[in-house]
Amino acid sequence: MKVNGKHYRTVWLEGTSVFMIDQTLLPFEFKIFEAKTYHESCFAIRTMITRGAGAIGAAAGFAMAQAWNNVEVNNDPDLADKARYEIESTRPTARNLFYAVERVYNAGKISFEKAVNEAQKIADENIEEARNIGKFGNELIKDGFRIQTHCNAGWLGFVDYGSALSPIYIAKNMGKNIFVYVDETRPRNQGAKLTAWELKNENIPHAIIPDNAGAYLMSKGEVDIMIVGADRVAANGDVANKIGTLEKAIVAKQYGIPFYVAAPLSTFDMETPDGGSIPIEQRDEAEVFFQEGMDTSGRIRKIWVCNPGSATLNPAFDVTPAELIKGIITDKGIIKPNQKSIAKLFE
Amino acid sequence: MKVNGKHYRTVWLEGTSVFMIDQTLLPFEFKIFEAKTYHESCFAIRTMITRGAGAIGAAAGFAMAQAWNNVEVNNDPDLADKARYEIESTRPTARNLFYAVERVYNAGKISFEKAVNEAQKIADENIEEARNIGKFGNELIKDGFRIQTHCNAGWLGFVDYGSALSPIYIAKNMGKNIFVYVDETRPRNQGAKLTAWELKNENIPHAIIPDNAGAYLMSKGEVDIMIVGADRVAANGDVANKIGTLEKAIVAKQYGIPFYVAAPLSTFDMETPDGGSIPIEQRDEAEVFFQEGMDTSGRIRKIWVCNPGSATLNPAFDVTPAELIKGIITDKGIIKPNQKSIAKLFE
Repeated sequence: MKVNGKHYRTVWLEGTSVFMIDQTLLPFEFKIFEAKTYHESCFAIRTMITRGAGAIGAAAGFAMAQAWNNVEVNNDPDLADKARYEIESTRPTARNLFYAVERVYNAGKISFEKAVNEAQKIADENIEEARNIGKFGNELIKDGFRIQTHCNAGWLGFVDYGSALSPIYIAKNMGKNIFVYVDETRPRNQGAKLTAWELKNENIPHAIIPDNAGAYLMSKGEVDIMIVGADRVAANGDVANKIGTLEKAIVAKQYGIPFYVAAPLSTFDMETPDGGSIPIEQRDEAEVFFQEGMDTSGRIRKIWVCNPGSATLNPAFDVTPAELIKGIITDKGIIKPNQKSIAKLFE
Repeated sequence: MKVNGKHYRTVWLEGTSVFMIDQTLLPFEFKIFEAKTYHESCFAIRTMITRGAGAIGAAAGFAMAQAWNNVEVNNDPDLADKARYEIESTRPTARNLFYAVERVYNAGKISFEKAVNEAQKIADENIEEARNIGKFGNELIKDGFRIQTHCNAGWLGFVDYGSALSPIYIAKNMGKNIFVYVDETRPRNQGAKLTAWELKNENIPHAIIPDNAGAYLMSKGEVDIMIVGADRVAANGDVANKIGTLEKAIVAKQYGIPFYVAAPLSTFDMETPDGGSIPIEQRDEAEVFFQEGMDTSGRIRKIWVCNPGSATLNPAFDVTPAELIKGIITDKGIIKPNQKSIAKLFE
């Protein structure tokens, strides 16, 4: 997608350097991070300079290709295994990372060039998947629609396009007149910071709303459809996603507003029978206590926004049961969130 | 209620000075503001050093009493009308203010002493109302209950006790083992800042939660009852309250959690037939863009927490329809939110 009018991917390889949009600085500063070695790529993945399943997978694939270059240059075949281990240790719960590293590791056994081609293919496949989600999801968006979304399920988490935002980008490209309500998404404000930044760069009319304002807008008939991403889709169609998603799905049902989840097949986990089996990560209290942002002099700061003596709770995700979801927009088409439709996807 | 173990009211008169807890500094600094003249009291009301219907009413009554002292000292009877106009202009939409000023204005025609007694009576009545809400609401709270609340409907908005928090304080005083989930309440964080500060000072176990976490906790069976305050109750039982209240009421209904509103009779507006007739204030975008808090050096700062180029929406209130409310806890008892029960209150 575009940044200041110029086309970018979130992560790409040039020569033996991996380039990434530095997501730790967004939306306040746009800067490209150059990782000259696979060590530096590992650093970038670990410190979330790049983040999101798709972007992490691509970056990890490129990092493994960088490592195969070292193998060739130093004529040291042991280095490939060492590098693989280092890359896999950066974000050990990211499934796309292991998948990408394995593919590029195997390709690199033939040559560095094969490794690069394989890594490139992984990045391209990620874009293709995201674009397909966009094409299918676009069918749901009528001219004049007001679309609500939660958190950031945009191109920053993929190599391009994104999941929940991909249909919005395609609809905009088709010339449809659309408006997006962006949930702020406390405590980390990924909506207010990242989704809003993406939409602004694509000139898509939008407004950031406090998470509290969702029901108000829906009750006033201001929302035509809600589309969110997913962290994991269970085999029965229950969806784990950013905290607050469940709340929006319940409110959407109350007002008869269609609620859709957008997710590539790689987000489905057939080994998780239902939402009840998904462990919910409880994150650091500090994320609620403090807000990070930019002060008037352009400096990034953290400030207390809570009563200092109090405790907080910070569950990172919640589970939306399948019955609250109208459909799941996948790269293979839009499906009903149930056991049978999901099983069919993987036949 | 208590602050650092010592009992306080939000506003009180000593001699001819009005003292107020400076709410603009909370929760980061606890400071008492002394208004030596009615001019200074007007300044405090206008700049929200004191805020909330009950506290404003009491402060305005005391300010009018201060003015009658000036009349006596200067032997200038015209001053009473001038002062009355000045006090009424500080917060022209606060109904309690006009009511209090009128009573103290009339009492002061007899003597300054009568004016002081009347102002004191207004403050005492406000406490009595709030305490009665607490006594009735306490009946709903069983030992071991986990209570969720939204925004700040505590003693800071009254002279003491509060509305939604009053039952919690009484339950605690009765020795009940309770826990409170405090909605952060973006964009102004009155829950995270004021409610949490109140509860901490009363040693009531509590946790601040992101507004997004409500449905998660309710879905896990972690919430036994939800109690919120009200900005206005319509004649049919619809309730206008802080943005996000409607969302919580819908989610509470989904999980069968009793949802109560606490409000004194002065919050009921029999001239508003239903929620649809209540205008919703759209507040400044800046409240969403910026967060105010304390940095590590103890300085109060505002920082950007949104993408700087984006628009925001900031509706301040929403309307919860009567059918989502289990009951309204008033100072005259708990009533069903319908035309008949409400009309009976005012017979």
